[in-house]
Amino acid sequence: MLVRKWLFSLGGLLLAVSSFAQQWQMNSPTAVTRMEFSLDERGIPRYALYYKEKPVIYPSELGVSLKDAPAFSRGFQMVSIDSSYTDETWQPVLGEEKNIRNRYKEMKITLREQLAPARSFNIIFRVFDDGIGFRYGFPKQAGLDDFIVTEENTAFRLTADHKAFWIPGDYDTNEFPYNTTRLSEVDASDPRFTQHIHAMTFYAKNAVQTPLMLKTDDGLYINIHEAALVNYPAMQLLVNKKDHALQSTLVPDALGNKAYLQAPAQTPWRTIIVSDQAKDILASRMILNLNEPSAVKNTSFIKPVKYLGIWWEMHVGKSTWDLAATQVAGEKLKESKHGATTERTKFYLDFAAKHGFQGVLVEGWNTGWEDWFGKWKEDVFDFVTPYPDYDIAELSRYAKEKGVELIMHHETSGAVTSYDRRLDTAFRFMKQYGINAVKTGYVGKVIPRGEHHDGQWMVNHIKRVAEKAATYGIMVNSHESVRPTGLHRTYPNYIAAEAARGMEYNAWSSGNPPEHETILPFTRIMGGPMDYTPGIFRIKLDYWQPGKKEQVQTTLAKQLALYVTLYSPLQMAADLPEVYEEKMDAFQFIKEVSADWDTTVILAAEPGEYLAIARKEKAGKDWFIGAISDEQKREMSIPLTFLEKGKKYTAVLYKDAPGAHWKDNPEAYSIEKRKVTARTELKLTLAAGGGCAIHISEEE
Amino acid sequence: MLVRKWLFSLGGLLLAVSSFAQQWQMNSPTAVTRMEFSLDERGIPRYALYYKEKPVIYPSELGVSLKDAPAFSRGFQMVSIDSSYTDETWQPVLGEEKNIRNRYKEMKITLREQLAPARSFNIIFRVFDDGIGFRYGFPKQAGLDDFIVTEENTAFRLTADHKAFWIPGDYDTNEFPYNTTRLSEVDASDPRFTQHIHAMTFYAKNAVQTPLMLKTDDGLYINIHEAALVNYPAMQLLVNKKDHALQSTLVPDALGNKAYLQAPAQTPWRTIIVSDQAKDILASRMILNLNEPSAVKNTSFIKPVKYLGIWWEMHVGKSTWDLAATQVAGEKLKESKHGATTERTKFYLDFAAKHGFQGVLVEGWNTGWEDWFGKWKEDVFDFVTPYPDYDIAELSRYAKEKGVELIMHHETSGAVTSYDRRLDTAFRFMKQYGINAVKTGYVGKVIPRGEHHDGQWMVNHIKRVAEKAATYGIMVNSHESVRPTGLHRTYPNYIAAEAARGMEYNAWSSGNPPEHETILPFTRIMGGPMDYTPGIFRIKLDYWQPGKKEQVQTTLAKQLALYVTLYSPLQMAADLPEVYEEKMDAFQFIKEVSADWDTTVILAAEPGEYLAIARKEKAGKDWFIGAISDEQKREMSIPLTFLEKGKKYTAVLYKDAPGAHWKDNPEAYSIEKRKVTARTELKLTLAAGGGCAIHISEEE
Repeated sequence: MLVRKWLFSLGGLLLAVSSFAQQWQMNSPTAVTRMEFSLDERGIPRYALYYKEKPVIYPSELGVSLKDAPAFSRGFQMVSIDSSYTDETWQPVLGEEKNIRNRYKEMKITLREQLAPARSFNIIFRVFDDGIGFRYGFPKQAGLDDFIVTEENTAFRLTADHKAFWIPGDYDTNEFPYNTTRLSEVDASDPRFTQHIHAMTFYAKNAVQTPLMLKTDDGLYINIHEAALVNYPAMQLLVNKKDHALQSTLVPDALGNKAYLQAPAQTPWRTIIVSDQAKDILASRMILNLNEPSAVKNTSFIKPVKYLGIWWEMHVGKSTWDLAATQVAGEKLKESKHGATTERTKFYLDFAAKHGFQGVLVEGWNTGWEDWFGKWKEDVFDFVTPYPDYDIAELSRYAKEKGVELIMHHETSGAVTSYDRRLDTAFRFMKQYGINAVKTGYVGKVIPRGEHHDGQWMVNHIKRVAEKAATYGIMVNSHESVRPTGLHRTYPNYIAAEAARGMEYNAWSSGNPPEHETILPFTRIMGGPMDYTPGIFRIKLDYWQPGKKEQVQTTLAKQLALYVTLYSPLQMAADLPEVYEEKMDAFQFIKEVSADWDTTVILAAEPGEYLAIARKEKAGKDWFIGAISDEQKREMSIPLTFLEKGKKYTAVLYKDAPGAHWKDNPEAYSIEKRKVTARTELKLTLAAGGGCAIHISEEE
Repeated sequence: MLVRKWLFSLGGLLLAVSSFAQQWQMNSPTAVTRMEFSLDERGIPRYALYYKEKPVIYPSELGVSLKDAPAFSRGFQMVSIDSSYTDETWQPVLGEEKNIRNRYKEMKITLREQLAPARSFNIIFRVFDDGIGFRYGFPKQAGLDDFIVTEENTAFRLTADHKAFWIPGDYDTNEFPYNTTRLSEVDASDPRFTQHIHAMTFYAKNAVQTPLMLKTDDGLYINIHEAALVNYPAMQLLVNKKDHALQSTLVPDALGNKAYLQAPAQTPWRTIIVSDQAKDILASRMILNLNEPSAVKNTSFIKPVKYLGIWWEMHVGKSTWDLAATQVAGEKLKESKHGATTERTKFYLDFAAKHGFQGVLVEGWNTGWEDWFGKWKEDVFDFVTPYPDYDIAELSRYAKEKGVELIMHHETSGAVTSYDRRLDTAFRFMKQYGINAVKTGYVGKVIPRGEHHDGQWMVNHIKRVAEKAATYGIMVNSHESVRPTGLHRTYPNYIAAEAARGMEYNAWSSGNPPEHETILPFTRIMGGPMDYTPGIFRIKLDYWQPGKKEQVQTTLAKQLALYVTLYSPLQMAADLPEVYEEKMDAFQFIKEVSADWDTTVILAAEPGEYLAIARKEKAGKDWFIGAISDEQKREMSIPLTFLEKGKKYTAVLYKDAPGAHWKDNPEAYSIEKRKVTARTELKLTLAAGGGCAIHISEEE
């Protein structure tokens, strides 16, 4: 149901604030938030945001700079304001909720420069109860056809030196651990706050990435990001430490230009989500709502996928992606440590089939890995040539027989021009072998050389891959890509992305600290599903290599809880089948947990500390709960009021065993089965770095 | 027949020139030229070239600079010299001669740095009687895997301030008119010597492009260019005006890097062709010989093509490429000036069929032209969507019925990433409609933005298109591409290129001065066939638009002569069928002239002044002669000694009529038929800017 009505015309809500300056305002549908727009005596446009009448954003400048033309920044007069009200409910193909309500008031402001060249410029606001989105529009007009954006000058004037959950600004990577500091302490060059990531491009000490999560001293939670990033570079933020103002900055191309546009054009939405409840930030669907409805007509091929993969075994050193590197001269093929062999893949397929998984990802199946890393080389992979010990035809047949699908892997090593050229051929190759999902990878510096992972060109590439994949009936999961902005509403086959620090870092770096997964939902996952790849049961990695110091920085029970707390319709059981075989009782939760949801209830949340979420599966009646803690041991009380009153349920709790601890005793878990109803209040004890996963099913 | 024998090993020809410096030399097969190679006391490698014992190149430095590594430039010691002699004859698929002799001595020098990192470095010389070629080699070795070339430091130390036929150095265009000055007068920024070309990128006042033609005061002709430009940027030359030394400089990428290589690697050949006869420069096949044999196995689809096209009528303003621009709101399609209509194409197909032409090029057939120019926009053309008034299916059928082939046109507007992505689709579309040849175009600034037309990335693109086209059985003619370097030996389906100032400039610029076509064979065409598009009969262009001042700067007879003097297996009859209908007697020469040759005899040549060439057709016994002059009226004597003795021939001479003059009376021609034998000496009078075309056939 769509409700849309015209609210008022120009002047209706005009508030004269001085003889020259003008101001307009708009409340959200239930007046929780309020947006103010003003033009000062110099014709400079500003907006401000209030939450329950508390200022969230002080009046902040709006504008865009162009190459070889005056900026759209000042000297404006108001031409018109068009307003409307929308209240609709829509159904995502896959999602955290079956029905999503999209309710907002819109104010479309048309400005014109008072003096020559007297160009028109639009600013569109949508005011939701959970925040605002706004974007710029460039109408087609004489003197504005093709143009180059050199910078976007959107300010976010915060009210104080808030606590921020941030990663360093960077043009090429978002795989940093999160920092929790005051805004005034942000320093992207400080070794305490940054790490070396392959193909990183540092550009400013005071730069941070979005989604940026903030918390004010008086308990407001603020999230700043963007929605519908299309044909434009990613926005990052520069922190002005003196006045707590954030300034937008766009990722440049090889020449330092930001965006190449042709009028009529519009920017992505800039989003500010706000609440006095951390839970509400996670429950917000504003970013999805600001994206366009599905552009994919036939979505029948888009399904939630739980999968296994020949992947973690390479990260822990058991096997290799490449074939050649393990083949010293004269050695036979059988002495290879190559992971993606026909035999090994059949072993995974057997296990997946036995336990009801839909897919098996196979990395390292194709030639190129012997010469792929750090070379900035254009033609490394051709995406259609298996290594000689990987019989794709036989595996395709075998997978079909087993009722499991192979998942394709396209690592590009950043050679995007090369991938673009081969995309049709690569997708046809997939379909020839009955493969309907692909994990893409963009490790390393990008080609075209000088372009960046988060620049306009790559943003366009990622969308292009999703669009083309849709025409082939292929689902896409991109790694090392630009962070999502809700575009999976428009391209629901773009099922997940990495675009943050995933599980793999635990295998060969300082890893992901216990708080990491409590921050991700407030940051990276605000934009869309993440292929985090949970489910590691062998937490201590010296199991694989004696003396190996790295480990996963959670308990085993927390690994299970992540299937609920880290939303994704694509979920890996990331550890090896032989590991799961040893702990089939715990593995049972991964087998049973859903990846597509009817309902989501955020039970408890504090970024960097804890999180508890309950979700009801879309295809059935079962509920799943995930509760996780940071490095603190924690008691948690979970009232099951979301259950149907009067019904009886069985809950299976996968808990940290007494004495469990992410570092010292991470694999100690216990499983408890008990009866529950809507009136039950579960008392959970989460270990340091621990968690609890719960499966609740109706009694029959 | 291949003769290859080992000549000598290290030390065989060592000439000690001092206690520290060392020198080696190699004569050409008949000792016309001699190359000297030396290592001085600092281990700096140099080469020198002599012609009949006259110095051509004084000892000149050799070397390559790398990023983040020491240059390969000094500190070398000799490791080994391998020498060989080759004498072979090969047959090009299409060419100026049926048989090409490739005779040279080779000296492969392996150097090693005396100090750490003690890397190996190769320099390979091939010494021909008509000059030398040399290239650098980077052996695979520890510490040299992937590397970035930041500059090539090859010097060409000339002996004096020679006369040069040059165009300004530029990263993106080679469509300048030629300048004839002393080297010391070179100034690429001087308005007398340069012109505005769309998407030009000036970079240095003292920069010139190759092929660079030089003439010394004592009558030596020297041509400097390169051969086998593969996976490397084009080389240009910086003129040191003080000592007449030329220094190589490479076209950079977006980041200022020059080439991304992986050992083992090699550079293109640097070529110096030298003679005391200008004719010998044109007769040299050294550049072709330095390229690899055909990589295309099945060459049966590669054929000489004479074609007409919907093309010149757009340049002269009779019609338009785009459809939309001519359609103001409410106008009907029939009022369009759009050239590429179904009806108009049939008219061309009819004319082509009637007169025995193989192809009809149609430009402006597809959507995109309404928004293509100067926008630096990525997705302008999709190469598969005809305008609604162009029925490609019907035209494909009609062309087949008529026994003529449509020639496809792929203008990319510089959006090369976009073209790359669509290449397979575009080629499949062509084959679907029976189209086996494509003219490609790269007007405008390149995308990837920051890359240049003559950089490594574009060089690779051009080769990629040729390679892929070969797999589809498609011939390629590229416009606005890097200038050729003999690569049509390796990819004989890369049948021609523009890559210089072609006929079109006469339609809308200061044009091509009468000397232009006498310089092109000594410069641009040294690298390979040019799609110059001669055959304009309506010389004065006010015929098309009253008051239009531009004109073609030759006589009509010279237009005919160009079919012989400007070698290409792809030759357009560039004017409109209705123009040819008015002068069918002159058109007869275009109908009869061949585009593939058994034998070529350069009769007379002086760059910038005159040219006369006789060629015998490959498929028959006829000879064709083209003689042209610059802006001077000129008498020319042509002895027909190349004809078979004792045989009787009929010659048809297409001559400038008395009083003909390129400017005042360009369309005055006369046709004379006479008997000739090998003992005949033809006395020709070429008008100012005039020429003469002759068709000689055996009497039956």
